[in-house]
Order: sequence, then structure tokens, then C-alpha cells
Amino acid sequence: MSITIRKIAKDLNIAVSTVSKALRDSHEISDETKQKVLDYAQKLGYIPNAYAGSLKNKKTKNIAVVLPEVADTFFSNAINGIDLVARAKGYHVMIYLTHESPEREESILQELRGGRVDGVLISVSEGVAKNSVVHAQLAKEIPLVFFDRVCEEVQTAQVLTDDLNASYNATQHLLSKGCKNIIFLSAAGELSIIHQREEGFKKAMSDHDQTISLKQIIRCSEDEAKTSSMIKKILTGKHPADGIVCSVEKLAIQVYRVCQESHITIPQQVKVVAFSNLQIAGLMAPSLTTIMQPAFSMGEVAATLLFNALAKKTDIKKEKIVLPSVLQERDSTRE
Amino acid sequence: MSITIRKIAKDLNIAVSTVSKALRDSHEISDETKQKVLDYAQKLGYIPNAYAGSLKNKKTKNIAVVLPEVADTFFSNAINGIDLVARAKGYHVMIYLTHESPEREESILQELRGGRVDGVLISVSEGVAKNSVVHAQLAKEIPLVFFDRVCEEVQTAQVLTDDLNASYNATQHLLSKGCKNIIFLSAAGELSIIHQREEGFKKAMSDHDQTISLKQIIRCSEDEAKTSSMIKKILTGKHPADGIVCSVEKLAIQVYRVCQESHITIPQQVKVVAFSNLQIAGLMAPSLTTIMQPAFSMGEVAATLLFNALAKKTDIKKEKIVLPSVLQERDSTRE
Repeated sequence: MSITIRKIAKDLNIAVSTVSKALRDSHEISDETKQKVLDYAQKLGYIPNAYAGSLKNKKTKNIAVVLPEVADTFFSNAINGIDLVARAKGYHVMIYLTHESPEREESILQELRGGRVDGVLISVSEGVAKNSVVHAQLAKEIPLVFFDRVCEEVQTAQVLTDDLNASYNATQHLLSKGCKNIIFLSAAGELSIIHQREEGFKKAMSDHDQTISLKQIIRCSEDEAKTSSMIKKILTGKHPADGIVCSVEKLAIQVYRVCQESHITIPQQVKVVAFSNLQIAGLMAPSLTTIMQPAFSMGEVAATLLFNALAKKTDIKKEKIVLPSVLQERDSTRE
Repeated sequence: MSITIRKIAKDLNIAVSTVSKALRDSHEISDETKQKVLDYAQKLGYIPNAYAGSLKNKKTKNIAVVLPEVADTFFSNAINGIDLVARAKGYHVMIYLTHESPEREESILQELRGGRVDGVLISVSEGVAKNSVVHAQLAKEIPLVFFDRVCEEVQTAQVLTDDLNASYNATQHLLSKGCKNIIFLSAAGELSIIHQREEGFKKAMSDHDQTISLKQIIRCSEDEAKTSSMIKKILTGKHPADGIVCSVEKLAIQVYRVCQESHITIPQQVKVVAFSNLQIAGLMAPSLTTIMQPAFSMGEVAATLLFNALAKKTDIKKEKIVLPSVLQERDSTRE
């Protein structure tokens, strides 16, 4: 029992238990008394426990953003888009990192179920099931919007980019530049977006009458050293690759490093295109051809859907928005 | 009143109000009854309101990280360092962005005062006062650790890097490479770390018997276009700069862009060194000489101080830890 509660009780001439109940929004206390206690507590500069406060106000004015990491230009740009919308609505954004761990993601979502936030924006970890029960449960309780990485079978809003088409275009771009032995570097783990990018690669190859062997789709490792030696093998083996589609940004950086170390010249010996939101792609040696996802816009749109749902303007379950990615040609794929 | 509370009351054969009070940790209810209610609620899969739960447990098992932005390699690396320590302790990290707004920072800190988190790690916005009252107030209530950007006069732990020395070394490095007209590009806004870097520049120049004119310390603008035209003027004017110390990463990127557009060659015409944690500094054209702050370690150390304070092992007010930054020489300052 805090000294402040005793003081409020004494000064207002009511019981300590009444003050305590009033601050906890108990159904036993009249609204009139609650208001009197809250007003006086505020006057004393007593900051009510945030939790007690939120029991009273129902709305927490917080939204959560759950995503794998922030040291990635896609996610940091998406956060900026989300934050812009949330600020305009007077909301705080709380960011939670999962580090690609489905277990950690589950524990975060369990915690968010307790009324800590009004809504959730999420980009799932590798390995989270299509029909994840905990994601579905949370989506029933509060508005939830997936962006970029989704649980395909959970009924709620999704904001995506056209990964299959984007990868198709990137592959076609390499073919048009004369590449004969193109490799698709796939990220480790299980992610719907990576599957889509793989499909785009296969479709472009088949539409251009290229046979693809299994060796042309390389599943990289979580272990950077292993991935680097795989890339080195691809570039210095008997039939070296002359074109590479990097399914994620960090693989492009690894390809550049291997080329730098092994004195392989881009684009003369191998052309490189990558899914990447690196702002400084144009300042790299050589400048990197990228498939740029609309990260900022995806964050903005996802947050807007969430706030519409909070204002009960829309049925969030039916929303699915697909924004286009853009191929930006630079020197790494020059002829 | 939820159906679950009624069910618990019925099954345990106690009053609804008793269940409600028990879940809210009321002083009117015995510990024995509280435990019985909580155990049964848990068995039913009833997730107690996080707020009610935290009234019971006191500890929220959350810490807050308050910082200007995440789209910056220093901050994203520091977050990873913090997160590593927090995860090992079973804590969740909630990230709040201030976007360099002191008003926004104040409103976030006010909210955090309400018992929402057990401790706070903060890197302050430009323009926050040395003796900010709201920061001091929060530091009295819960453990608070400043990292990198601090309120110098607020009595609590600080984790810093040696900005003055690092800037001194960078300037000396340019002088040793034969630069005769070195410019220090200072960031917009008021920040103690930027002042330190400016001092380091001045000291190195004076120690090497170089006179400095006011024109050699350029205060850049928040407006990117304005900053770019200032940089262009420096590089193409009557007495063009032959060396630049960039006080923050984004200024280095702007210098590179201006050089690219204006066909000024680095390092032949101008040598560039920058405070930067860019992982791909080595892949830029040309590779960028950096002063790398120990971002990850600073996050780790700051979080460790916080958890020590939470475990009441240390007096947090007396801690001040300074970690060294490292000059990494690359092609942008080659002779």
C-alpha cells in the first residue's frame, strides 16, 4: 500500500480500500467516486500504475510491431512507415524482435494477448507454420496485420509485395544480358516469400526454354562461413555461374565479398541482382542492381489497415494488399 | 465481468468479487486464496490481463530501449547487443523511437513512468537538455542507463565511446596523408557527442600547428538537399577541400553521392573518413575509411549495467564506462 493511496483516502475522507478499488476500476465503486479519486490522484502528481490506468481506459494507445530483426534495411524502412502513421494517430509503437525464432515469437504473442496493446503488426519468423494456432488466436482477440512474411492460412489482413513477379523479372533481366548459367541463391529456413521468389526464378527459366538442374537453386546456410564457401565453389568451380539472383540482401553482400577476395569481376565474370533495400546500393563497387521492395509503403499501408480496424471501419479479415517491387538496373548487371 | 471469472468462482465455490480481487492482487484477499485462484485460472487457460498480472508479480519482465531511429547501423547494432543480454535474462525488449524529437521523447518517458517496464536504456534526441527534468525523474524511479547520447547532468549510468580521441585520430590520419585543407562536417542539432567530435578535430589541428578558420567546421542542415549543396560548394569552390571528416554516417553517404555526381575522385581529389558502423564500408566505391564505434558492445554493456541494477548488485548512479572506437583505414584515405 503506497503512502499516496493513504493520503488520497485521508484527504477525501474515504476508505483506503475504496481508493485502491477506484484506482483499479473495480465494479464495486461508483463512477462518481472513481472520477473523484482519479482527479485527486492526478492533482497530487501521483502517476497511476499504467496497468491500473489501462484497465480504466481500455485502450492502451500502444501497437506492437513484431519482426525478426532491425539490422535489415527492409525492416527498418517498414518501421519508419508504420511509425509515421502511428504518430499521426497519437499511438506509441513498441517493437519486439524474434530473431527468427518461432518459439520466441510465440512467447511474445502470448504476452501481447494480455491486453498490453490495441493491435499488432507482424512479419513472421522462418519456420512459423502456415496455420499457426497462436497467431490465429491473437488475430481473433485484437486486430492483427501481417506484412511481408505471413501465415498464409490465418484469417487476417496481409500486406505483401509481388515476390514471384519480381523474381521473374530479375531472372529475365539476367537472361537478357546474356547469362547462360544462372544460380538462384535461396535463403536458409522456410519462408513463403522465399518460395515465391524461387518459383519466379523457375518460371522465368522455363518460359525462356532454359532447363534448370537442381544445382542451380542453392539453399544457403545460417552459417555465414559455410555460405561463403558455397558461393566460392559456385564461382570458381568447373562451370562457374555467370549470373546470380540473391533472394535476400545479406547474400548479395556475401557474393560481393567472395568476388573481392577471389578477384572475380562483377559484371564481367558474373552478373548479380539482389532483393535489397540498401540505400547505398548505388555507391557499391560496382553499383548493385536491386529488386527494391516498397518497404516504407508496406509499413504505412499495414498500419493504416490496423487503425481502420481499430476504428471499426473495415473488416480486417478480408484485406489483402499487394504492392509492386521495382527492379533498379545498375552496374552489377551491365553487359 | 468475464465468463471465465464467473466459472472460476463457481468451480472453486467462492464469490465472483473474491476471484476478481484475487486476480487483481487485492490486499483484502489472503495469499492462499490468491494462489488457488491463479492456479485454477491458469489451468483453464485463462490468460490473466497482463496488467493485473503485473500488479501481482511487480516485475514486468520488460525493458524499454528509447532511441532516435533504427535505420542507422549504430543503433541497430546496439539493439542487437542489448537484446542478446535481455534474452539471456528472460526479458523482453520494447523499442521506442523518438525521431529526434525531445517532446516525443518526453511523452514516451512519462508513459514509461507508470510501471510499464522494469528499466530503461536510452540514447537521447538532439536538443534534449543536459539536466532534463523528466529524465532525472525517471532515473529516480527505475534503473536508467544512457548509452552513446547522454544527459550529462543527470545522475545515472552512462556507456560512452571516446568521441574526442576518435575524432582526433581521424583528423591526424588525414594530416598524415598530406591533406592541407580539411573540413569537419558537423551534424545538425545539438548533441554532446558531436561537440566532442568537433573538439577532437580542433585539438588535432592545433596540435599539428594548423590554423583553423570558421569555414572549416560546417554545420550541416536537417534538409538533405541543402546539405548536398553545401558539400558541393566545399568540393568545387575556389579552395576545394582535400580532406573531410564526416561526424555521422549519413554525411559520408552524401559526400560520396556529390563526388559521384560531380566526378570528383576519392581519394585522389579528396580523402574521406567517417564515423560509421556500415557493415559494407569495405564494399563501397572506393572502400570507406571509418571510425567504428563499438555499437554492439555498448548495447551489451549498457544492458548488463541495467540488469545488475535490477538485481541490486550495483549502485547504478556511479557507473560510467567508456569503450574505444576504432579507426579502420581503407581506400577513401589512401595516398
